[in-house]
Amino acid sequence: MEYRKIKDEDNDGGGRDANDLESLRGKPLSAISNVAASAGERSKWKRKSMVTLALTVLTSSQAILIVWSKRAGKYEYSVTTANFLVETLKCALSLAALARIWSSEGVTEDNRLSTTLDEVIVYPIPAALYLVKNLLQYYIFAYVDAPGYQILKNLNIISTGVLYRIILKKKLSEIQWAAFILLCCGCTTAQLNSNSDHVLQTPFQGWVMAIVMALLSGFAGVYTEAIIKKRPSRNINVQNFWLYVFGMAFNAVAIVIQDFDAVMNKGFFHGYSLITVLMILNHALSGIAVSMVMKYADNIVKVYSTSVAMLLTAVVSVFLFGFHLSLAFFLGATVVSVSVYLQSAGKLQR
Amino acid sequence: MEYRKIKDEDNDGGGRDANDLESLRGKPLSAISNVAASAGERSKWKRKSMVTLALTVLTSSQAILIVWSKRAGKYEYSVTTANFLVETLKCALSLAALARIWSSEGVTEDNRLSTTLDEVIVYPIPAALYLVKNLLQYYIFAYVDAPGYQILKNLNIISTGVLYRIILKKKLSEIQWAAFILLCCGCTTAQLNSNSDHVLQTPFQGWVMAIVMALLSGFAGVYTEAIIKKRPSRNINVQNFWLYVFGMAFNAVAIVIQDFDAVMNKGFFHGYSLITVLMILNHALSGIAVSMVMKYADNIVKVYSTSVAMLLTAVVSVFLFGFHLSLAFFLGATVVSVSVYLQSAGKLQR
Repeated sequence: MEYRKIKDEDNDGGGRDANDLESLRGKPLSAISNVAASAGERSKWKRKSMVTLALTVLTSSQAILIVWSKRAGKYEYSVTTANFLVETLKCALSLAALARIWSSEGVTEDNRLSTTLDEVIVYPIPAALYLVKNLLQYYIFAYVDAPGYQILKNLNIISTGVLYRIILKKKLSEIQWAAFILLCCGCTTAQLNSNSDHVLQTPFQGWVMAIVMALLSGFAGVYTEAIIKKRPSRNINVQNFWLYVFGMAFNAVAIVIQDFDAVMNKGFFHGYSLITVLMILNHALSGIAVSMVMKYADNIVKVYSTSVAMLLTAVVSVFLFGFHLSLAFFLGATVVSVSVYLQSAGKLQR
Repeated sequence: MEYRKIKDEDNDGGGRDANDLESLRGKPLSAISNVAASAGERSKWKRKSMVTLALTVLTSSQAILIVWSKRAGKYEYSVTTANFLVETLKCALSLAALARIWSSEGVTEDNRLSTTLDEVIVYPIPAALYLVKNLLQYYIFAYVDAPGYQILKNLNIISTGVLYRIILKKKLSEIQWAAFILLCCGCTTAQLNSNSDHVLQTPFQGWVMAIVMALLSGFAGVYTEAIIKKRPSRNINVQNFWLYVFGMAFNAVAIVIQDFDAVMNKGFFHGYSLITVLMILNHALSGIAVSMVMKYADNIVKVYSTSVAMLLTAVVSVFLFGFHLSLAFFLGATVVSVSVYLQSAGKLQR
C-alpha cells in the first residue's frame, strides 16, 4: 500500500511506473510486488479513465459551443488566428504545469525543457500533417457539401485503426476490427438525415480527397502517440510543449497563407466575441486532453472517446436547443454502444 | 467412406444420424468412427447450408413477388383464401414426398403418418399462435402505419433470441447477444427512409401490440423448433404434414372470420391472377424451407436467413425495378454482415 501512496504523490509517474513494472519482471514475484503491481494497475486505470472522461466531456462541449456560435451568427473571425491562439494557450499551460513540477520536484533529466535534435526532430511532423489536412479541407468542399463532409469524416475511424496496426505494430483481434467497422457505421447512422444520400453522389475526386484526409488525420494521431510513447519516462508537459511550439509555427504559416489580408486590414482579433474566447479555451483544454489520452491510453481510446462525445452532444442538444433525436440516432447510438462493448470484450480474449 | 455413401443414399437420415453419433459416444473412438463422425458432420453441414440457402432465396424472391404484385395493382383477392391454399399445398407436397419415401424405404415407425394423441397434441399450437398474430395485425394499423409496422417487425429478432434462450434452454454467448442486437439495428437501419421517424410517435398501445406480436411470432417459431426437434428420428415430412393440417384448419377459421362475405359473394378464387398463383407457390416452398431449417438448423439460422434475404431483395430490386439504394441501406447491410460474422465467431469461443 505504501507503493500506492508514493504513486499518488507522483504527478507524472506514468512512464516511470511502467518502467518500474518492467524491471519487476524476471524477478521472483513476492507478495509485496504483487500488491504493488495491482495498486499500480489500479492507479493507471484511474488515470486512464480520468483523461478519457475529460476528453469526452471537452469534445462534446466543444460541439455544443460550435452549435451555439452558429446560432449566434456567422463566423466573423479568422479561423487561422483562433487556431494559432489555441496552440499558444496550450504551450503556456504546458509551461505553467512544468513550472509547478520544477518547483516541487526540481529539474530532472525527464522534466527539463531542453532537448536534443534527435528527440525534437520528429515533433514537427504531426503539426505539418494537420496543416496539410486543414489546407485540403478548403478544396474538398468543391466536391462535397458540409453535411456530406461530416459523414465522410467517419472514415477517420477506419484509417486510425489501420494506421494504429501498421505504425504502432499493435495487433487487434478480429472482434476488435469488427468493433471498428461498427463504430464507423454507428457514428454515420447516428448522423443520418434526409439529405445524407447526397454523399453517395460524391465524385471520384471527392472520395480520394476524403480518404487522403482521413489517412493524414489518422497518421498525425498515430504518429503523435508514437512520439509520446517512445520515451515513457519523459514528462508529458515537455512533450506537449514541443508539439505545441511547432503547432504555433505551422499555424502562423496558415495565417499567412489564408488570412493575411484580413489580419492586415481588420486586425488579428477582428470579430472575436465571448463565445470565440470560450471556444479557444475549450479547444486548448481538449488538445491537452488528447495528448494525455495518447500518453496514458491510446488512439483507440481517443477515437471511442470522441465518438461517444458526438452522441452525448446530440442528447445534450435536445435539452439545450430543443433538437429532436431521430430513429437513425437511436440505432446508431445502439451500434456504437455494442462496438464499445466488443472493443473491450475482444481485448480480453487475446 | 462407406458410411458416407450410405448416408448419401439415405434421404432423411438427419435424426437417425444424430442418434448414431450419440451411440458412438462412450465407446473408444477408433479411426473408423472418427472418419464416420467427420463425414457425418460434413454431410450435416452440407444439408444445413442447402436448406438455409433455399430459405434465403425463397424469402427474397417472395418479397420481390410482393413488390411486383403491388406494381401490378391492388390486392384484389382475399388474403385468407391464399393463406389457406398455401397450407393445403404444403400438406400436399409433404404427402407426395412421403409417398416417394414409402415406396423406396417402406413404412417404418419413423415415417408412418399415423400418430398418437401424445405426439399430435402440440402441433396445433404454432398454427393457433400465428392465427392470433395475424388477427392482431389488423388492429395494430390503428396505431402504426404500414412502413412503421415493417420497422417494428424487427423486434421479432430480439424476441426470437430471448425465447430461443428461455424455451429451448440453449445458452448464447455475450458476443452472440451483441450480434442479435446488431442484427435488429442493422435491419432497421437498412429500411430507414425519410418517414421512418414517424415510428417514434407510436402511441403506448401500439408499442404494446408490436411487442406482443413479436413475442407471439417468436414463440410460434421457437415452439415449432421444439416440436420438430423433440423426436429427431421422426421423418420431417410427417411432422410437416401434421403442422400444416392444423395450419389449414386455423386458416379456414380465418376465412370465416375475415372474408366470409367476399368468398360467398364473389367466390373463393375471386381476383386471382398469375402472380397470385406464383406467390402461393413461393409461400408454400418457403414454408417448407422454414420447417427444414428448424429441423436441420435452428431459429437463429432462420432469423439470419430471412434478414439476409431482405438485403438481397433490395439489391435485386435495383436491377429489376430501378430502385436506389440509400446510404442507410449500405450502413445497415454492413452492420448485418458484421452481425453474421459475430454470431459464428461468438459460437466458436464457447
